[in-house]
Amino acid sequence: MSGNTIGEIFKVTTFGESHGPALGCVIDGCPAGIPIDILKIQKALDKRKPGAKQIDAQGNEIFNSAVTARKEADKAEILSGIFSDTNNATETPLSTGTPIGILIRNTSQHSKDYSNLKKSYRPGHADYTYDQKYGFRDYTGGGRSSGRETAARVAAGAIAQMVLENTTTTAVHTNSKINIIAWTKEAAGVKAPEVISLNNPSSIDKQTIDTLQSTIETNSMRTSDTQTASEMSKAISKCRAEGNSAGGIIRCLVTNIPAGLGEPVFDKLDAELAKAMLSIGAIKGIEFGSGFESAKMHGSDWNDAIRSSSVSELDTSPYFETNHAGGILGGLSTGAPIIFDVVVKPVPSIFIKQHTIQKNNFEMTTSNTKFQNTDILIEGRHDICLCPRIVPVVEAMTAIVLADMLLRNRNARR
Amino acid sequence: MSGNTIGEIFKVTTFGESHGPALGCVIDGCPAGIPIDILKIQKALDKRKPGAKQIDAQGNEIFNSAVTARKEADKAEILSGIFSDTNNATETPLSTGTPIGILIRNTSQHSKDYSNLKKSYRPGHADYTYDQKYGFRDYTGGGRSSGRETAARVAAGAIAQMVLENTTTTAVHTNSKINIIAWTKEAAGVKAPEVISLNNPSSIDKQTIDTLQSTIETNSMRTSDTQTASEMSKAISKCRAEGNSAGGIIRCLVTNIPAGLGEPVFDKLDAELAKAMLSIGAIKGIEFGSGFESAKMHGSDWNDAIRSSSVSELDTSPYFETNHAGGILGGLSTGAPIIFDVVVKPVPSIFIKQHTIQKNNFEMTTSNTKFQNTDILIEGRHDICLCPRIVPVVEAMTAIVLADMLLRNRNARR
Amino acid sequence: MSGNTIGEIFKVTTFGESHGPALGCVIDGCPAGIPIDILKIQKALDKRKPGAKQIDAQGNEIFNSAVTARKEADKAEILSGIFSDTNNATETPLSTGTPIGILIRNTSQHSKDYSNLKKSYRPGHADYTYDQKYGFRDYTGGGRSSGRETAARVAAGAIAQMVLENTTTTAVHTNSKINIIAWTKEAAGVKAPEVISLNNPSSIDKQTIDTLQSTIETNSMRTSDTQTASEMSKAISKCRAEGNSAGGIIRCLVTNIPAGLGEPVFDKLDAELAKAMLSIGAIKGIEFGSGFESAKMHGSDWNDAIRSSSVSELDTSPYFETNHAGGILGGLSTGAPIIFDVVVKPVPSIFIKQHTIQKNNFEMTTSNTKFQNTDILIEGRHDICLCPRIVPVVEAMTAIVLADMLLRNRNARR
Amino acid sequence: MSGNTIGEIFKVTTFGESHGPALGCVIDGCPAGIPIDILKIQKALDKRKPGAKQIDAQGNEIFNSAVTARKEADKAEILSGIFSDTNNATETPLSTGTPIGILIRNTSQHSKDYSNLKKSYRPGHADYTYDQKYGFRDYTGGGRSSGRETAARVAAGAIAQMVLENTTTTAVHTNSKINIIAWTKEAAGVKAPEVISLNNPSSIDKQTIDTLQSTIETNSMRTSDTQTASEMSKAISKCRAEGNSAGGIIRCLVTNIPAGLGEPVFDKLDAELAKAMLSIGAIKGIEFGSGFESAKMHGSDWNDAIRSSSVSELDTSPYFETNHAGGILGGLSTGAPIIFDVVVKPVPSIFIKQHTIQKNNFEMTTSNTKFQNTDILIEGRHDICLCPRIVPVVEAMTAIVLADMLLRNRNARR
Repeated sequence: MSGNTIGEIFKVTTFGESHGPALGCVIDGCPAGIPIDILKIQKALDKRKPGAKQIDAQGNEIFNSAVTARKEADKAEILSGIFSDTNNATETPLSTGTPIGILIRNTSQHSKDYSNLKKSYRPGHADYTYDQKYGFRDYTGGGRSSGRETAARVAAGAIAQMVLENTTTTAVHTNSKINIIAWTKEAAGVKAPEVISLNNPSSIDKQTIDTLQSTIETNSMRTSDTQTASEMSKAISKCRAEGNSAGGIIRCLVTNIPAGLGEPVFDKLDAELAKAMLSIGAIKGIEFGSGFESAKMHGSDWNDAIRSSSVSELDTSPYFETNHAGGILGGLSTGAPIIFDVVVKPVPSIFIKQHTIQKNNFEMTTSNTKFQNTDILIEGRHDICLCPRIVPVVEAMTAIVLADMLLRNRNARR
Repeated sequence: MSGNTIGEIFKVTTFGESHGPALGCVIDGCPAGIPIDILKIQKALDKRKPGAKQIDAQGNEIFNSAVTARKEADKAEILSGIFSDTNNATETPLSTGTPIGILIRNTSQHSKDYSNLKKSYRPGHADYTYDQKYGFRDYTGGGRSSGRETAARVAAGAIAQMVLENTTTTAVHTNSKINIIAWTKEAAGVKAPEVISLNNPSSIDKQTIDTLQSTIETNSMRTSDTQTASEMSKAISKCRAEGNSAGGIIRCLVTNIPAGLGEPVFDKLDAELAKAMLSIGAIKGIEFGSGFESAKMHGSDWNDAIRSSSVSELDTSPYFETNHAGGILGGLSTGAPIIFDVVVKPVPSIFIKQHTIQKNNFEMTTSNTKFQNTDILIEGRHDICLCPRIVPVVEAMTAIVLADMLLRNRNARR
Repeated sequence: MSGNTIGEIFKVTTFGESHGPALGCVIDGCPAGIPIDILKIQKALDKRKPGAKQIDAQGNEIFNSAVTARKEADKAEILSGIFSDTNNATETPLSTGTPIGILIRNTSQHSKDYSNLKKSYRPGHADYTYDQKYGFRDYTGGGRSSGRETAARVAAGAIAQMVLENTTTTAVHTNSKINIIAWTKEAAGVKAPEVISLNNPSSIDKQTIDTLQSTIETNSMRTSDTQTASEMSKAISKCRAEGNSAGGIIRCLVTNIPAGLGEPVFDKLDAELAKAMLSIGAIKGIEFGSGFESAKMHGSDWNDAIRSSSVSELDTSPYFETNHAGGILGGLSTGAPIIFDVVVKPVPSIFIKQHTIQKNNFEMTTSNTKFQNTDILIEGRHDICLCPRIVPVVEAMTAIVLADMLLRNRNARR
Repeated sequence: MSGNTIGEIFKVTTFGESHGPALGCVIDGCPAGIPIDILKIQKALDKRKPGAKQIDAQGNEIFNSAVTARKEADKAEILSGIFSDTNNATETPLSTGTPIGILIRNTSQHSKDYSNLKKSYRPGHADYTYDQKYGFRDYTGGGRSSGRETAARVAAGAIAQMVLENTTTTAVHTNSKINIIAWTKEAAGVKAPEVISLNNPSSIDKQTIDTLQSTIETNSMRTSDTQTASEMSKAISKCRAEGNSAGGIIRCLVTNIPAGLGEPVFDKLDAELAKAMLSIGAIKGIEFGSGFESAKMHGSDWNDAIRSSSVSELDTSPYFETNHAGGILGGLSTGAPIIFDVVVKPVPSIFIKQHTIQKNNFEMTTSNTKFQNTDILIEGRHDICLCPRIVPVVEAMTAIVLADMLLRNRNARR
């Protein structure tokens, strides 16, 4: 059954395989009147792209040691859902309220590289499970299970970001722009120093975030600290030399979020974010705020005390002294920053011979299918650690969930 | 907007507040012909019930030190969707394919106990966020955000379990019964010894599971080891004496699962399980298989090698040498046991004075609402650690997700 | 698969069989803050009830000749989703934004009356098709396919009506209350005189509607003209005497509707109304505005010219000179009255022997099931013409669709 | 809110405007293993195309007088969701179970033709209602509300047809292929002779359908009788000469349908077909079987008697003596042919000056928008009667609903 749509009001449906003609998405439910900037979509796609060029703090081009090059233009074309008066063609078009179709052509697929995968299942990949589910599979480049599918998510996430920036909410209000930022917190065993304290959420101000964002964008590991980036790169180079790969952890921080987003009891904000994150291929876990540390904590440590600062006699602003909840209570945003970590498994493609099985027929699996033991050595170039490439996907999926929740929340009150 | 339904084919909609007349659920999409045993629903509800009586290995009644008593009959009544021939009234009725309505009356609510909560927000609870979302709230007993809501989930989970046991699948086959079992892995800082090895999944045989299930059911902490149960109880008694509360970790294990369940790319099996788990109020994180440990692993450690054991020349059975993936690859079940851990935050209600705020009006929030600082001391008896009570909820939500996925999978192939 | 929920934001799920313990509904997605008046729900249920008492213009009780008595209390109990401050118990409670559960007990089912239906299929009923779909059926009183199921729809429709009356819309505005009114336009071959002209929609003013409503409520046929009511009753008495039944047509009129409701391209307003109407058991067709007459019309006849009346220099109000479109263009409401007719088939239960078949086993249908010819004579009292009883169901389903569309429309614009 | 997806399991999402770069669809939920023939999609699109060439019974090319030419290649490209082994490129690819994306480029849009529509609303079109809903609109060629949008439906319908032909059903079985056929029953006041009798459904045999199909395909009106086609063409030529347009009625017949399709109580088969049909722009009504005639019928006339013909002692086949129900009872298919009529309104674009209004600003509507009276004369060539072009759209939407229902029905039984 169909599982390629996410969202209830801001609905994103993606399509496309790694080695098919194209991939893309349809965004249904974008309100009319949102300025849609194709350049921002392209910028987001460029950030996700394999072998993306990056510029460091000194203006030098960075070689990203963790990911490896597949030359894809990843050029997005908007097919529908936007309109600008023909006499003002230079203006940013507006969304019309109709579905926004986005197309990204595949331009560099090499089907011939994958003929050996027709027979054998790569350990750690979805090869075996797709065959078990569907009876056969598109074995070229991972087909639909390829990370390439996330390009469509990133394009949709860019639209979601435009909704977050330009939508007027009705039931809740916030004066500032919702800001979503993610970074590599740990990779190949190297941890970045803590930059966000759950014990002092008020320290997360605009300047902190601006500095953080600038640092992340100017190192190839997309981590929060330049020195750490260098150490991570070294650890990854070592992995590469050994034909191996590495895992990591990505942190996501959302600030200026209005209170009350989320839809109990099943579509809680943390539940929907968890689903969105675990829907990214390599992610194997998520924790909010104090997360798994909460197991060892007491209520007196964990509970975030609520305080009110008198802005004026008629306007008072509640805040939380700590943020062990990670910005979500009862499945609803508290207004404090949303903080969650996700764990990224090591890249399953490695240059080391592995045990696996192959099947005796390559058509749709029938009761006659037999399997026999074999070894596999995966060829070609592959990523070593997915963290830097998944960072923009985490941001995109967060934006998609929040845009949907912001629109859903319009019906919270009469 | 509505968020009280989970599932695409096996759809569960719950309703009801802690102190309203009743709570319950409607299960739409249960196939016709499933034997529906009301006693099994009741048994599941009794297991979840506050202050549930338990019997230890020696046949003695166990006093559950972690949870505290609210006397609720929690008697389930099936209102619709089942039928048995009137001449054979003693027979188990069958589902008819129409919606199954289940009603559980609230019988012991004390509204007067909650009058002070009308004004102030309890830290760690959903009081503040519900007010922010809806403009006002049912402040009696937590209303809809109360853990009491999970009674309806447990009733629905019992039906889901009956589907898992009695449904014939079409695209995938398994000869044995899907088995779901959860237990307290850690509570109040006390960890149980490891019983399930990711490095040796074939050690998880029927006898291991039977022993495990028996141990879990005969200690009040629902943990996997009798000695650990005793230590956990002591740690919790200490918390209680200090007016404090404690968190913990619950592990869930699913065996005899067919390969191929899950619906890429957004409704992956792990994504849907993550959503289902995070939709449980006190749960703040989830990890599958090696989970957050994966961050430090290499591909060569993490990848689970695939092997085939020749059952006969015409029938070969693939298996995995290790199970770091926790039984899910590419969002689809591999056929290996599904293993995941969830973290439970400390009970937010503690007997210690806390900082909070109160609002100046108690009607629907308007622009005139002001907040002022105050302190709150929560009265009444409360749970110390939610783990033993959440164990059956984790099992129920897992059953609901799997029943839905099993039915969705019927359309994987032509 | 599940088909017992209608609506995308204002979601109504119904459950319950004719002869089970109870029926009811869960309404998920009702915004918080709507005053919920249980008496209005009860009033709507009383209007639908079999053998409902009616009072004519002279204050005399009316014997409804078309429908026949099943004594059901049809007492609605709200189980959840509403709250009123305990110190002000006499006040109307408000919706809390959580699901509203409504329970209606069945009190007068006679299972013994239906034993002969276990074997044979009643022509014109759903007996045969339910058996074919589900393998067996609840044969007592029609089970889920009974018209009794509509009681839950009427209760939900009453809540929808409260939403229509109390919701502030964001993208569209209307100063007056949306008004929904339906009546029997034709029954047993007797037609009521035309009261609504498509050629002169501006003639449909408040006084016309008030008079119409008053007439409809004071005759047992729920038709728009007292003299017609008398003729219809006679025609139906004749049917009854002959052991036969009759069909009819119901018209529905919605006034003060804001322009722009409906969600292209599939969830057009007329598409959703058509689905809602055809989901009522006895309805076999629907037409909007000029409907099937449009086949013979030319564009110059059919097109409704648009005009603007200057209310003031700064406020101008568009209107339509005619209303052949029935108030809907491009799947969106135009602001003109919505007008549609639905056709009601004759009651299938008649006191005349009919050809049918019976099956050789009464358990779940297997490949061994055989059918043989037989005759059936249906016993007990039955309705002659369903129109007067379906009138409130048409109104309820219209209210449910419009409440959903009003809330969906909140996301039309940024 | 989003309304551009239809179906629960076989989900079709369409996108695209009349004058944007492209339109298309994503089909999510197509089971794996269905042979996908791009030529059949192209053939279906060619049939729908404006000014489609047709060949009559004598092999001569037919000039279609009812529709007028817009030269569109309407070339479909499949972007994803199919796979064929690269070594067997000539073989028909199979669906992989992943979403099937289809792209159709717009190649002949002339934006300059539509500048006058920026200001004024065309009567009978969706211009005014789109402006009211979204605040502004894409005024080039009708934007999303253009009939051009149906090209995507026809492409999806071709895939649905492949599902109907190649899917193995589990709960219900039929040996023959489901056959869907539609034709113009009435146009411009000219009625075709009755070819399908509700009183004698068994007369609808394969030969009748083959002859019917052949006749329909070889006349430009797509009607069931050659002589009628000639008369319809004359009536339409007269309309054209007068600058006017005409309506009509289309009949749809589905044979070899298994019993039991449809999902009570809201997603009844007739309810879903009604929604699907009314979602087609020009359709204003639908009736099943005896339809609006049922109002005048008695139960004794209307009820379709059920009979069983003994195929053998162990295999008996139920059938209906008449088919006033149009093949649907209780919202489920009976196994008898499904028969319904839909009414098509006259083309709203006519060459006659009409009353309308224009607005004073052309940006997103604000409270300052004022309207003033004006006249409009629509230029360019337009269709006179939509029936022949809507016939393939009716077939496509019927196929989409039936494919979805066939797959949904797989979960009717355990």
